[in-house]
Amino acid sequence: MEQRLSFITLGAKNLDSLKNFYVEKFKWTPVKTDGIVFFKMNGFILALFPADELAQDVGVQSGAPGFKQFTLAINYRSEQEVDGIFDTLEKRGVKVIKAPQKASWGGYSGYVADSEDNLWEIAYNPFLEMDAEGNVAGHE
Amino acid sequence: MEQRLSFITLGAKNLDSLKNFYVEKFKWTPVKTDGIVFFKMNGFILALFPADELAQDVGVQSGAPGFKQFTLAINYRSEQEVDGIFDTLEKRGVKVIKAPQKASWGGYSGYVADSEDNLWEIAYNPFLEMDAEGNVAGHE
Repeated sequence: MEQRLSFITLGAKNLDSLKNFYVEKFKWTPVKTDGIVFFKMNGFILALFPADELAQDVGVQSGAPGFKQFTLAINYRSEQEVDGIFDTLEKRGVKVIKAPQKASWGGYSGYVADSEDNLWEIAYNPFLEMDAEGNVAGHE
Repeated sequence: MEQRLSFITLGAKNLDSLKNFYVEKFKWTPVKTDGIVFFKMNGFILALFPADELAQDVGVQSGAPGFKQFTLAINYRSEQEVDGIFDTLEKRGVKVIKAPQKASWGGYSGYVADSEDNLWEIAYNPFLEMDAEGNVAGHE
């Protein structure tokens, strides 16, 4: 798997107040604020998303032991690439938490866990602009 | 505060096995493996660090409620810049968890919390190479 990252998503108890913290205290500018908040960082996106909806996307209970309330993500350029990464990781014995599938937000994604239950989403997002090196350049 | 990030640090229960996961399953190459593990990503470093040592660095108990076992960091180019950021954030009412101070690893750092106890380290690290945009270019 390429050694890069596209998203860090923090599960929020109160999305509006957490967004306001980053806007008012850090003076950061979001590129998306409807239901999920995106801050474009240096090469990736810091996302804020209600923790219960994040858990639902993973397919676990929000308060489940082992669910750390945040996820990491690496994005690829097609559904086929995502499938290929899952095949490779499964062959290496990586625990698949959610097999890749069409997502409600219009993309295609699944989740694997590292050896300490940190969750990695592997996704194709048709709305995400990536440069040749895989850095996130923007979001439509 | 600049809209970028220099480190994501995951607290590890078992540093060696977590490092091995990323090396053997993701096939990633660390740039540092002695006591702390660094993977150079796209513009920042993904660090693995024993969770109890991470808690100690923050100044909290490892199992304390609210300690999420991971931290985010933004690095600046001097101790003076770090002090300036802390001054600014304190004036805006941001909760300081640890005032900036000399760190055991040879740098200078402190921690603030966002409105949901996600911890941000603000640091100067003399061993970190940063490019003009603030991306992490390497680590000595």
